[in-house]
Amino acid sequence: MAFKVLARDKHSLARVGKLITRSGSVETPFFMPVATKTAVKHVSPEMLEAMGVNATISNSFVLSLRPGASVVKKLGGIRALSSYKGVMFTDSGGFQMYSPSLYKGSTDKGVEFKNPYSGERIFMTPEQNMQLQLDLGSDVAMCFDTMPLIAHSKEAVSLAVTRTTNWACRCKETHDALQKKISKKKRQLLFGIVQGGIHDDLRRVSAEALTQLDFDGFSIGGLALGEAKEDEYRMIEVCQGYLPRNKPVYLMGAGNPVELLEAIERGCDMFDSRFPTMNARHGNIFSWKGKYIVTNAEYKTSLKPLDEGCACMVCKRYSRAYICHLIRNEEGVGYQLASYHNLYFLQELMRRVRKAIRAGKFKEFKKKFIREYEGR
Amino acid sequence: MAFKVLARDKHSLARVGKLITRSGSVETPFFMPVATKTAVKHVSPEMLEAMGVNATISNSFVLSLRPGASVVKKLGGIRALSSYKGVMFTDSGGFQMYSPSLYKGSTDKGVEFKNPYSGERIFMTPEQNMQLQLDLGSDVAMCFDTMPLIAHSKEAVSLAVTRTTNWACRCKETHDALQKKISKKKRQLLFGIVQGGIHDDLRRVSAEALTQLDFDGFSIGGLALGEAKEDEYRMIEVCQGYLPRNKPVYLMGAGNPVELLEAIERGCDMFDSRFPTMNARHGNIFSWKGKYIVTNAEYKTSLKPLDEGCACMVCKRYSRAYICHLIRNEEGVGYQLASYHNLYFLQELMRRVRKAIRAGKFKEFKKKFIREYEGR
Repeated sequence: MAFKVLARDKHSLARVGKLITRSGSVETPFFMPVATKTAVKHVSPEMLEAMGVNATISNSFVLSLRPGASVVKKLGGIRALSSYKGVMFTDSGGFQMYSPSLYKGSTDKGVEFKNPYSGERIFMTPEQNMQLQLDLGSDVAMCFDTMPLIAHSKEAVSLAVTRTTNWACRCKETHDALQKKISKKKRQLLFGIVQGGIHDDLRRVSAEALTQLDFDGFSIGGLALGEAKEDEYRMIEVCQGYLPRNKPVYLMGAGNPVELLEAIERGCDMFDSRFPTMNARHGNIFSWKGKYIVTNAEYKTSLKPLDEGCACMVCKRYSRAYICHLIRNEEGVGYQLASYHNLYFLQELMRRVRKAIRAGKFKEFKKKFIREYEGR
Repeated sequence: MAFKVLARDKHSLARVGKLITRSGSVETPFFMPVATKTAVKHVSPEMLEAMGVNATISNSFVLSLRPGASVVKKLGGIRALSSYKGVMFTDSGGFQMYSPSLYKGSTDKGVEFKNPYSGERIFMTPEQNMQLQLDLGSDVAMCFDTMPLIAHSKEAVSLAVTRTTNWACRCKETHDALQKKISKKKRQLLFGIVQGGIHDDLRRVSAEALTQLDFDGFSIGGLALGEAKEDEYRMIEVCQGYLPRNKPVYLMGAGNPVELLEAIERGCDMFDSRFPTMNARHGNIFSWKGKYIVTNAEYKTSLKPLDEGCACMVCKRYSRAYICHLIRNEEGVGYQLASYHNLYFLQELMRRVRKAIRAGKFKEFKKKFIREYEGR
C-alpha cells in the first residue's frame, strides 16, 4: 500500500494520511513546490529541507529537452542530479500542451512537441512518457494526459476525456510491464489523472474509468486554471464521489491557501503550484492576516518582518523594507527571501491543518483561518 | 587607530593586519563581495556570514536613487536595512561616471547625474556625497573621486588627478566637520582614492597629495579595468612608494585570484570586485586547479563537486552536473550555488594567505598557488 489514512475529520472528507514511496514517506495533506527543472526558483534544495518541504514536482517533458533523459539516467536519476532528499514527483508533460513554444499538435497516438532549443520535432507517446519518467527516476509519476482548457467546448473536453482514459490504460500497462522485475518496495508509483473540465458528467466518466485501473493515486487535473471557485470545488466533489477512498487524491495546480483548505475539506491530500513562488517574485506575500504586496510604498520604511505570526528564517531576520527594496530592484536575494517565506507559509499551514484534523478541529481551524486571511 | 599590522612578510610588502571599525574588525588581507544595493547578487546576508565574509561594499550613489537616502536614514542605515552583520563599506559613486544611463557630465564643483527612474537631474558635490555616505551609515566611506579610464589621454588623466585631489580635500574637511560631535569609536572611517591611470608620475602626484590628508586608509582606484597586468602591478608599486605604511591600502575592483596575490605581495590589504559573482553567473568557476567553465558539455554528467579541494557548502553537496544544468537553464539556484562557491573560494584563499604570511611562507604559497591555478 502506498497510502495509509491516519486520522479522519468527522464532519468532512478531510483526513491525515501518509504517502509511502520508495524514497520515504510524506504526511498528507501536503503542498509541494514546483521544481520544473529539479530546482524551485531561487530556493535551493537545502532551503527546502530546512523549511520541512518533503516533496517537490518536476516536469518530465521539460527535463527530456534539457539536460535530456540519457544525461539524467546516466547520472542516476533526478535525485542524484539535484541531491534533494525529499520525495520527487514528475508530471508527464500534458500541461505543456498549452505552451505555444513547445506544442505542435496531437493525435490518438501521442503528442507532437517542438524542442525550442534545437527546433527538432519530438513525437511523444504515453508509452514513451512512462519510459521517460522511469529513466528520470522520480518516486511518483503521472499518466500522460490530455488536458482541456476551461474555455474549450464540451465536445472538445469530452474528446480529451476519452483520450486521457485511453492513454491512462496504455500508461498503466506500460508502467506495469517496465517495472515487472523490480521489487514492490523499489517501484515508482503511478497516478492517473482525472479530466473533464467543469462538466459534472464528464468528470464522472473520467473518474469512473480511471478507477477501473489500479493506480497508486488519483490526480484531479484541469482545475485551478481560472475557473470560478464554486466550479472548482464542485468538480472536486464530483470526482470524489467516484474515486476510491483508500487512495490518495492530488489536486494539481492549486496553491492558494484558501483553495487548499476547501480542497482538503473535500478530501484532497496533496497539491502543487507555482503560485507561492510566482507571487513572491511579484512581491505578493502570504501572511496569517492575508496576502499583501510588500513592494507597495507603505512598506519602504517598515522594519516589521514579512509576517509577524511567522517563525521562518526570513521573518526572524529580515524586514519588509529590505525585501521591498530588493524586489523593486529585481535582486535575486529578494526573490529568494520572499519565495522562502511564501513556501514556508504553506508548509506551516499544512502542519496546522494536519494538527487540526488530528484534534478533530478542522472545521473551526478552517473558519478561523479564512476569516483572518480574508479579513472578514 | 583604524589599522594595526599584526605580521609582516620578510621578503615582500605582504602583511597581516586588522581593520578596526565601529562595527567590528576584519583581518587583512580580505576580499569583499560587491553588494551594490546592499545585497550580493543571489547570495543572502546569512550565506555571506556562513562563509566568513566579514565585509561588503555598497554604492552610495546607487542607493541614493533607490530606496533613497532619506528612506535608509529613517530605517537607521544600511545595516538596519540589510541586517548584514559584517563591516559595511560604501563607495562614493565616482565609478558611475562610466554608466551612460546615469552620468551627464561634471565640473570642478561636482557631477551631474540623471536619475534613470525619474529622469530627474541630480547634481552631486563631494560635500553632499559625504553627507550621503554618513546618512547611509556605512562603516567605511570613500572620497568622491574622478576616475579616468586607461584609454584617456595623459592630459585628461592629469586633470582627473587634480580634481580628485581637490575633491579629496573637500571630502575630508566636510567629513571631519560632520563627525565632530561623534566620539572617536563611533566615527565612520574615510579613505582617500589615488588616481593617475597607468602614469607613474601622475600616480606619484596623486599619492603624495592624498598622503598630506589624514585619511584612515588609501584606495588605489582606476585599475583592474583591463590594462596590462604589468602596468597594474607597477602602478601599485608606485603608489606604495608614497603611501604611509601604517595605513591600510585598498585596491579597488580587483577580484582575480592571481591579481590578489600579486597585489598582496605589493602591500595591498583589501579588495572588492564583481568578478567572482559575475563569473559565477556565466558558469566560470574558481578552483584550486584553475578556473573552468562548468557549463561546458563535458560537465553535464560529472558528479564531482565544483572543486575537489573545496570544503564549501556547495562542494559538500552539489555536483558540477547540477550546476551546469541550472546555469544553462538560467535558474536562480544555479547562480546562487556558483556565486557562493566562487566567493567562498576567495575567502578561503585570503585565509590561507594570512596563514602563510604569519608562517613566513607567503612567497612559497603564492608560487605554488599560481603554478597550480594557472596549470604551469
